[in-house]
Amino acid sequence: MRGWEKNVRKVVPYVPGEQPKEENIIKLNTNENPYPPAPGVKLALERLEAEHLKKYPDPAATELVRALADRYGVKPEQVFVGVGSDDVLAMSFLTFFNSEKPVLFPDITYSFYDVWAELFRIPYVQIPLNERFEICPEDYFAANRPNGGVIFPNPNAPTGLELDPDAVEQIVRENPDVVVIVDEAYVDFGAKSALPLVEQYDNLLVVQTFSKSRSLAGMRIGFAIGSEALISCLNDVKYSFNSYTMSQAVIAAGTAAVADEEYFQKTVHAVMEIREWTKEKLRALGFLFNDSKANFIFASHPEIPAKELFEALRGAHIFVRYFDKPRISNYLRISIGTREEMERLTEFLAEFLRKKNIQVK
Amino acid sequence: MRGWEKNVRKVVPYVPGEQPKEENIIKLNTNENPYPPAPGVKLALERLEAEHLKKYPDPAATELVRALADRYGVKPEQVFVGVGSDDVLAMSFLTFFNSEKPVLFPDITYSFYDVWAELFRIPYVQIPLNERFEICPEDYFAANRPNGGVIFPNPNAPTGLELDPDAVEQIVRENPDVVVIVDEAYVDFGAKSALPLVEQYDNLLVVQTFSKSRSLAGMRIGFAIGSEALISCLNDVKYSFNSYTMSQAVIAAGTAAVADEEYFQKTVHAVMEIREWTKEKLRALGFLFNDSKANFIFASHPEIPAKELFEALRGAHIFVRYFDKPRISNYLRISIGTREEMERLTEFLAEFLRKKNIQVK
Repeated sequence: MRGWEKNVRKVVPYVPGEQPKEENIIKLNTNENPYPPAPGVKLALERLEAEHLKKYPDPAATELVRALADRYGVKPEQVFVGVGSDDVLAMSFLTFFNSEKPVLFPDITYSFYDVWAELFRIPYVQIPLNERFEICPEDYFAANRPNGGVIFPNPNAPTGLELDPDAVEQIVRENPDVVVIVDEAYVDFGAKSALPLVEQYDNLLVVQTFSKSRSLAGMRIGFAIGSEALISCLNDVKYSFNSYTMSQAVIAAGTAAVADEEYFQKTVHAVMEIREWTKEKLRALGFLFNDSKANFIFASHPEIPAKELFEALRGAHIFVRYFDKPRISNYLRISIGTREEMERLTEFLAEFLRKKNIQVK
Repeated sequence: MRGWEKNVRKVVPYVPGEQPKEENIIKLNTNENPYPPAPGVKLALERLEAEHLKKYPDPAATELVRALADRYGVKPEQVFVGVGSDDVLAMSFLTFFNSEKPVLFPDITYSFYDVWAELFRIPYVQIPLNERFEICPEDYFAANRPNGGVIFPNPNAPTGLELDPDAVEQIVRENPDVVVIVDEAYVDFGAKSALPLVEQYDNLLVVQTFSKSRSLAGMRIGFAIGSEALISCLNDVKYSFNSYTMSQAVIAAGTAAVADEEYFQKTVHAVMEIREWTKEKLRALGFLFNDSKANFIFASHPEIPAKELFEALRGAHIFVRYFDKPRISNYLRISIGTREEMERLTEFLAEFLRKKNIQVK
């Protein structure tokens, strides 16, 4: 071992879904949106003045923050933006979870939470979902389980299940002395947001992203909305890390995306329709899954191991996500693509099952 | 105090130079380049396919990493990229400086170093520059001062002074058991890089940025070059923080900037020429300054307090940087702008001194 290695922070990094570089694949493995971003995004990028790129961007990303504040009916002082919701969440862990008590999150959830906790040496406890993969609110009450903070996605990932707004409020209310983060990466596809609660609870931080419902994964934009007090703490830590996280291109693209509400509504509803269509098809093929409110379906088949299906799909250039982890190793997480992509997926699966002599409806 | 505030990380954030939004100002306060980025950058942004923005960017930013590896004659595995050199440096502090012993850096230097150390709770010692504002290499030798790492800019900021390559190598050689970071944000304006040393010393990390010499402050691109072992550690921590830090737009713009070596050489030399011209003018006005090798001049006037000059310049819509800090509170840091901007600056100063009845040559 080299001398300097003893001072290196040891981590087991998060492994993102593959980003295969081949053409002509069906990519349903990282929950991207099948539709392009709002047409205004292209225009905004074309109109960027190259001359101006020599100057630093606005460190406060004022234009984007204001667009979000207007869209969600809050003050600009209640909005924080970052390089994807991963950046926003990492900053939030660093800012809010400095307690000797453990942070609580589900055992089956976004697999970056434990990575951030390990990175920043934050104690944590992973609370098992019930056998139906549901979050039980009372498991997260401070009175039942003293904690240094709570975080969960809603809808949860990779299960796609929504926790109802009353249950979310209970968790926030029962943890007045810590910050509760609701990670709403997938909320726009038909679930209810906790945003209306931020005026009432100054310990609630709601995090969302442009990567899914706004079709801008490639630009990296996430945001948090909360009380002015919370956002101010988050900004202090951000300004202690990197003054300028949002490039001029990102600010322009994000602002343009928020401006087009009609396109946003149209595309998220189209994704939801395709999801419901896909559910029917998968059900007919004998797949089992919960009622996903996200832009993916988390499904298993009673007669074929998920890993076998994953590999067969991959062989057919259809990429879905498989997690080799306890409790979920027999599930596939299938992102919702275009109608045509989902047809190709379900046709492949029907044919695969037929060849295995598995009866389908 | 609210309950949750006790778990908040307390920080005193870095304060970036002002980004005034008025038009018709001369902005010489944040060391930006007066020239626009290479023409290929504009093209690259125009050619970005909006359709493709719905997909995540390449998490490894392969295209940009490869362009840098080719340009600097190293392997792609020796290159790390981030959201400006601030992101690269913040990640480096988090990755490499996990020791009980203090990290060493100069007392007069980039004022983000102590902010990162405080943020990540890294012990540190600020070593005074000598009275000529020079770094004394032996102050940083492990044998003289046991430490958990070393970082300094070369040329130093805000002094602009270059440390000669032998002295840099001495510091690296005398600290084999810790990582030594040379922050070369300004190196392209006439100083010598430590890059040739990375093949020999696996504990040397050289950090550079696109914000100054490549006129891309607005896009946020920084990079580090070092041994494969160092870069691998840095990537592990990065992937534990945010899988995708570089947007598609940033990767495309950065790659295009690196491609145009001729433009790069032409513009950095133009900046250097204007710097030398400005030095002559300032000298004639009685200003005192060291021999800056950066794209700024750190100057004081024996007869007028820097703060007074700063405010007078500001009143004339000329923004320079003033640091209200021990030892340097009588200096101005003046970025090198266009020849015309520097003419307006020096003409204003000449007139100001004349009105004060201060004799100039």
